[in-house]
Amino acid sequence: MTDALPFAGEPEDSHEAIMRATFCALQEHGYAGLSIQRIADKADLSKSTFYHHFDGKEDLLLSFLEFTLEEFDRVFQLESSGDPATDLQTFFGLLLGDFPTVDGMPEQEDILATYVELRAQAVRNPDFRAKFTETDQKFTDRIATLIEEGREDGAFRDVDAERTAQFLLTTLEGITLQNATRDDNPLPQMREAMESYIENELLVEDHTES
Amino acid sequence: MTDALPFAGEPEDSHEAIMRATFCALQEHGYAGLSIQRIADKADLSKSTFYHHFDGKEDLLLSFLEFTLEEFDRVFQLESSGDPATDLQTFFGLLLGDFPTVDGMPEQEDILATYVELRAQAVRNPDFRAKFTETDQKFTDRIATLIEEGREDGAFRDVDAERTAQFLLTTLEGITLQNATRDDNPLPQMREAMESYIENELLVEDHTES
Repeated sequence: MTDALPFAGEPEDSHEAIMRATFCALQEHGYAGLSIQRIADKADLSKSTFYHHFDGKEDLLLSFLEFTLEEFDRVFQLESSGDPATDLQTFFGLLLGDFPTVDGMPEQEDILATYVELRAQAVRNPDFRAKFTETDQKFTDRIATLIEEGREDGAFRDVDAERTAQFLLTTLEGITLQNATRDDNPLPQMREAMESYIENELLVEDHTES
Repeated sequence: MTDALPFAGEPEDSHEAIMRATFCALQEHGYAGLSIQRIADKADLSKSTFYHHFDGKEDLLLSFLEFTLEEFDRVFQLESSGDPATDLQTFFGLLLGDFPTVDGMPEQEDILATYVELRAQAVRNPDFRAKFTETDQKFTDRIATLIEEGREDGAFRDVDAERTAQFLLTTLEGITLQNATRDDNPLPQMREAMESYIENELLVEDHTES
């Protein structure tokens, strides 16, 4: 999987093949309907191959969670546009589904819905909880760095970068949760609200008007 | 169940007894570990009594979701303090767990975690999705009314009440999600961030300084 996109290209080994099969089985059957048998069917592998790699479903899913979060973290690496506000909007867009997918792979909204299903498992699973704590911190750091760059650049106000980043990530996760669990498609409206927030609360007025 | 608190007091009939048993079984076993048998054990009722009331687990859980959301909606009815900012903070506090519970009932944080587990089911269950869409709208309306009262009172700025209410509810749900799925207890810090938001973005400065 040397391609730029998560789960794109030919899997390089059986671990990658299993990760991709898990991804597809999750999309199709949801977390509750997931079984080693179903993943094995998708991967065209025997169940014994699975048990060679993993202790069981819980172990496989933790491995899958680690793999996926790392893949997305990699895709979310940005090349700066030179404009901090644009970089921040681009990063938020990625978290809300503006990432490319490939033919035969699930749509962005379905991927975000799977994220919500996996995240809810962290309520009962301490390993998942540790992983999401780590990823939230990683994304918070990334947003805080973009805010600091904007401050140094004079584009952003003198806000507390870490605290603002936490607040923004929380709101982004709220948007993801609502969009996956409501039938009135709140995403476009909430994206606008996020853009207004950045415009009104972060941007220095003189800077944007020039 | 004539008491003010959800699930407090003696259940009035077998429907209420089943709702309470479902609540307790959910806390103990989580959504994935829930079964009619486990709920029947908690309620000290036979499985046949269950099937007299409900078609199955999905039907029972939808009924439970409706019952619980209505109970909390009832508890969340506020008597105005006369100060719109205080009323808004109080309402947000309720959504984040500042509601009373009774001996023998789960802690607030556990109730919110169960909310996250149920909400994630809406990814795959259209009936749940319809219910959460309706409840989100109800809470948004409630927040928008509080914001409008604050505007009329001169305490709040001239913001778009509906849009601001949506943004705030989204953030509150993001806080609930993060708090239930992370191990670094982000709730106190996020509550502070919400309070800052209200202070900085909603309150009219002259009004608060007077």
